[in-house]
Amino acid sequence: MPKITAHDLAKKQKEISVAEFFERNKHILGFGNPTRALVTSVKEAVDNALDACEEVNILPTIHVSISNHEDENECIISVEDNGPGIVKKQIKHIFGRLLYGSRFHAIRQSRGQQGIGISAVVLYGQLTTGKHAKVTSKIAEDRPAVVMELAINTNRNRAEVISRNITHWEKPNGTIIQVPIQADYKRGKRYIYDYLRNTSIVNPHARIVFTETDGTIHEFDRTTDVLPKKSEEIKPHPYGIELGTLIKISKHTKSRKLSSFLKNEFSSMGARTTRAVCEKAELDPDLQVNKLSRHQFRQLHKAFKKVKIMAPPTDCLAPIGETLIRRSLKHETEEISPEFIMTATRPASAYAGNPFQVEVGLVYGGNLPKDEPVRIMRFANRVPLLYQQGGCVTTQAISSIDWRRYGLDQKSGKGVPRGPAIILVHVASTQIPFTSESKEAVADVEEIENEIKLALRNCARNVQRHIRKKVRRKKTRDKFLLISKILPEIAKKSSTMIDKPVPSLDAVITKIMDVVWIEDLIEYEKMKKPVIQQTTLLQHDPNNPVETVLTKSSIKVVNYKQKPQKFSLYAIIPEDAIIQKVEPKPVKKTNQYIKWNLESIPPASKVDVMFELAGLEKGDFDENDLYIKNINPGYVIGADKWEGD
Amino acid sequence: MPKITAHDLAKKQKEISVAEFFERNKHILGFGNPTRALVTSVKEAVDNALDACEEVNILPTIHVSISNHEDENECIISVEDNGPGIVKKQIKHIFGRLLYGSRFHAIRQSRGQQGIGISAVVLYGQLTTGKHAKVTSKIAEDRPAVVMELAINTNRNRAEVISRNITHWEKPNGTIIQVPIQADYKRGKRYIYDYLRNTSIVNPHARIVFTETDGTIHEFDRTTDVLPKKSEEIKPHPYGIELGTLIKISKHTKSRKLSSFLKNEFSSMGARTTRAVCEKAELDPDLQVNKLSRHQFRQLHKAFKKVKIMAPPTDCLAPIGETLIRRSLKHETEEISPEFIMTATRPASAYAGNPFQVEVGLVYGGNLPKDEPVRIMRFANRVPLLYQQGGCVTTQAISSIDWRRYGLDQKSGKGVPRGPAIILVHVASTQIPFTSESKEAVADVEEIENEIKLALRNCARNVQRHIRKKVRRKKTRDKFLLISKILPEIAKKSSTMIDKPVPSLDAVITKIMDVVWIEDLIEYEKMKKPVIQQTTLLQHDPNNPVETVLTKSSIKVVNYKQKPQKFSLYAIIPEDAIIQKVEPKPVKKTNQYIKWNLESIPPASKVDVMFELAGLEKGDFDENDLYIKNINPGYVIGADKWEGD
Repeated sequence: MPKITAHDLAKKQKEISVAEFFERNKHILGFGNPTRALVTSVKEAVDNALDACEEVNILPTIHVSISNHEDENECIISVEDNGPGIVKKQIKHIFGRLLYGSRFHAIRQSRGQQGIGISAVVLYGQLTTGKHAKVTSKIAEDRPAVVMELAINTNRNRAEVISRNITHWEKPNGTIIQVPIQADYKRGKRYIYDYLRNTSIVNPHARIVFTETDGTIHEFDRTTDVLPKKSEEIKPHPYGIELGTLIKISKHTKSRKLSSFLKNEFSSMGARTTRAVCEKAELDPDLQVNKLSRHQFRQLHKAFKKVKIMAPPTDCLAPIGETLIRRSLKHETEEISPEFIMTATRPASAYAGNPFQVEVGLVYGGNLPKDEPVRIMRFANRVPLLYQQGGCVTTQAISSIDWRRYGLDQKSGKGVPRGPAIILVHVASTQIPFTSESKEAVADVEEIENEIKLALRNCARNVQRHIRKKVRRKKTRDKFLLISKILPEIAKKSSTMIDKPVPSLDAVITKIMDVVWIEDLIEYEKMKKPVIQQTTLLQHDPNNPVETVLTKSSIKVVNYKQKPQKFSLYAIIPEDAIIQKVEPKPVKKTNQYIKWNLESIPPASKVDVMFELAGLEKGDFDENDLYIKNINPGYVIGADKWEGD
Repeated sequence: MPKITAHDLAKKQKEISVAEFFERNKHILGFGNPTRALVTSVKEAVDNALDACEEVNILPTIHVSISNHEDENECIISVEDNGPGIVKKQIKHIFGRLLYGSRFHAIRQSRGQQGIGISAVVLYGQLTTGKHAKVTSKIAEDRPAVVMELAINTNRNRAEVISRNITHWEKPNGTIIQVPIQADYKRGKRYIYDYLRNTSIVNPHARIVFTETDGTIHEFDRTTDVLPKKSEEIKPHPYGIELGTLIKISKHTKSRKLSSFLKNEFSSMGARTTRAVCEKAELDPDLQVNKLSRHQFRQLHKAFKKVKIMAPPTDCLAPIGETLIRRSLKHETEEISPEFIMTATRPASAYAGNPFQVEVGLVYGGNLPKDEPVRIMRFANRVPLLYQQGGCVTTQAISSIDWRRYGLDQKSGKGVPRGPAIILVHVASTQIPFTSESKEAVADVEEIENEIKLALRNCARNVQRHIRKKVRRKKTRDKFLLISKILPEIAKKSSTMIDKPVPSLDAVITKIMDVVWIEDLIEYEKMKKPVIQQTTLLQHDPNNPVETVLTKSSIKVVNYKQKPQKFSLYAIIPEDAIIQKVEPKPVKKTNQYIKWNLESIPPASKVDVMFELAGLEKGDFDENDLYIKNINPGYVIGADKWEGD
């Protein structure tokens, strides 16, 4: 055998184009098989459309249609949006080049970030069908639309424009992307439907219309005309930033002094924190930043961790919110009538300098299957995650909690529990650490795992509290029913026997009950006109009014104690509800609760309290969460001790 | 709010460098946290070293050492090999540029392929410590070694050479890579040890020395001087090739006619298959390939699937082999004394034109924990996979099998079973479809999942057969013991009573037993001199002789039937064993079995059969697998019906 040398090997060593790399490794982009490829393609196009619309404050209207063409295994995917369009000279780069985009360097929450997704769809289409993608873009009412056919030269990672034309399009602005791909439509259909439905639920400001190959149309209408709060771009936070990144930033800064460098290039670095960091690092704040040695940067980097720095600003995040989470879980459990839905939101936190926030929801009971693993619904930056559940930090966090104490079945307290429940987890971040570019699972970053666990425990504790409350209430109610049924009978019988009038039993019942009883009822009334919360509303389709309801909550407080009772009552309300009528006049209204100071209630008397909420759908608010203060909580059935203020 | 237009967005749209992309997305390369980063770094460097040595037929000797330096959370990783070295002008590209390498376009099994791994380690080191990597390379005995310090300019994805020197290194050739990285050594140590140990087990030709930060040395010696069969580079196979790839190949071919194009550019395309494909595609084999239309390529592509084409050649694959799998499972179960170890190997198959092969192993019983999920050991191309088990097709395949019938505990017959077992799966392929660039989990490609399932079922059936055999044998043995103990007693007593000599009971025992009884014994004898199988041996260290054993198998066949019996006996042997002495003379010896035609054995007589195997470690062969032919299998205890030939 001839000897092979380093020189022989050197002949083969060469550059690999990024497009070739992804063409070869289409699995890691989510194109592993024809079903998944179909779903990924739709997902990338829709994510892009939503991002584009939100970026320019347009309420998204997205048409997704899939058609079969020459043969069974080939589909043409078409996704049309009413976004801002793309300027002519950028079209070929955005759609025909991997690693090209606008959001890579911006620290804020968005669906797409890497500039890979949509060009990977074009690449996959070309690879599997040999055909080209077609992009239509219109950027202003008074301009014609541009239509381009694109191919990708994978050796160079550049688009080749096959044809370029101008056309009339009646819409004022928008983009259409059409890609022929090899796909398994039959198996993929259900996933696309689920993806679009879940997307629509957590993006209620979007209207999505899905046309199947056979012409069947599914409309997912918007349920609000309000765009989600736009996530703001922020600077990196000093916590968790890598030393190498710190040095890199220092090379591009316009600041000259160390102190201004810290203040200008990072989040949460006020004058005081900056001083404290410099002190800990034993560095003069007036040092010239471009003259710092690696050792000095190292000191600075260590000092970051020793000084308490405010959490990063959270306006770069756009969480789903508890109401939408409840709604999304409700949709999943239609006709199941679950026992309850609980949600929990954690305050924003950070990993490696990236802000993130976790929200969770839990549905329990009803007709959910009892002997199957609980269903897990995962979302990242408002995008439903459909695959790779096993490899997701979400699943890992769920598996590490002992759910047996919360009434679910779980062997040795580890693993995905079994029982009639659905667990929803949403992670919002300026940078979701996905395990792979297919963006199907979140990596096991310790900070994120911990926050998910805290949120789930929180939620589970609420479940326990809820059950405890329910049990206690039921016991008291049974007692009450017994008393109010039997005592009058005895009184009547005795009175007849001794021939005396039947006495009033109020005092006796009160003495036996010995509680303050709080009972409530929630009703919904139709409202034709939507209530507008903010003024950011830009587009509103007058032909498509949104139907919301007025949620009416009536609370009855009965004093079955022997002495008059005077205390404060709190009702928790969803953050996005708008308070309408409230009776009696409350002493405080915030976007989280209403507070009343109840006047002294005499024994055996009752007080009626009510409030109305607008801006919610029917069922968004279906259970009062009540708290009391300035009264022994042991006296009260139907409300817990207020821990706030 | 000012209106944002497509032009505003266009200003932000720009190219993203591949190095920046991976710097930002270090999770998808396996650098998600400091523990994992440490393991990934060692893994990438060792994989590279093994690949380099095998490529030039050198028995690898690899020194891995990790040292702590300035601070607790920083390690310097050093990996030294005795491979071919790297020519000077390529060093900066190989280590300082992502997507640069020699194996990307070659279709054959190797550990590294993408040209990302080792440069990602350098990138991660720089990002977390701000320090540079150091590479030492020597390509020939008579040349000095080159030492280079490298940094990566992420904006350009190019290396910057910080320093370049010449030095003396006593070794004839090799490479040393030293990278300072942020790492959690305490938590990572165990994983590195496991990774190196498992790597050494499935790469018995490699010597690996691991030096810990405190100077502790672990030596994993080579147990064979034979390099694994070198995997050959092959052409793509027509099955599963994408239409786009087909068109792309046609653009670069030197063949002019369609027929020669098919024959020259693809695997398994002989003259006959080529004719059949052209016929099905309704294309003239003499057509000029550069003039084919997209439609014609489409016809060709469809025709591929309609014609039976031979499987791709498998010499591009290098499976581990059943012996090494058994050995690796043995190592895992030292001091556990499991009941048995079973293995199964599937024939090579292909997905999307890529050949692959699945091997599995199963250990059962002993002191393995009874109430925990079974342990899963995963390997891909001889590399142990440590993370992302949940997201791996291996786990998916295991979870989809109903293991309850094989004696393991599994709720509703789905999910990872629980019980005293270890399941090992190895996937070998010219291209492993990893779920992400961190190469920790194999994607759920249907063909691969199916093969894993088939292999596991095969293995599980062997387990069942084994148990059945054992039960039947035990029953017969109990019967035999009873007979051979009680009958003589009765005979003795009766003889004494009637004062007659004790009769011979052979005929009676035979009549009652009514079977052919086969019993066997395996012993090991030390051998000082290793047996050489092939002549590919290039380097052999005379100071380090390998200790192997001679495996002796003795088989006793006793005829307890009433008539003489004459039949064939087969003993299965491991493929990599070398047959030494065999008695009596067999009629056939292959690398899979030995066959004897046993002469007629009279009733109550026995025949001794034996064979010796070299080239195995003690315990590699610890149970005979015997088969019989030309006799009613119901007559025989200790061997099954031969289904082969």
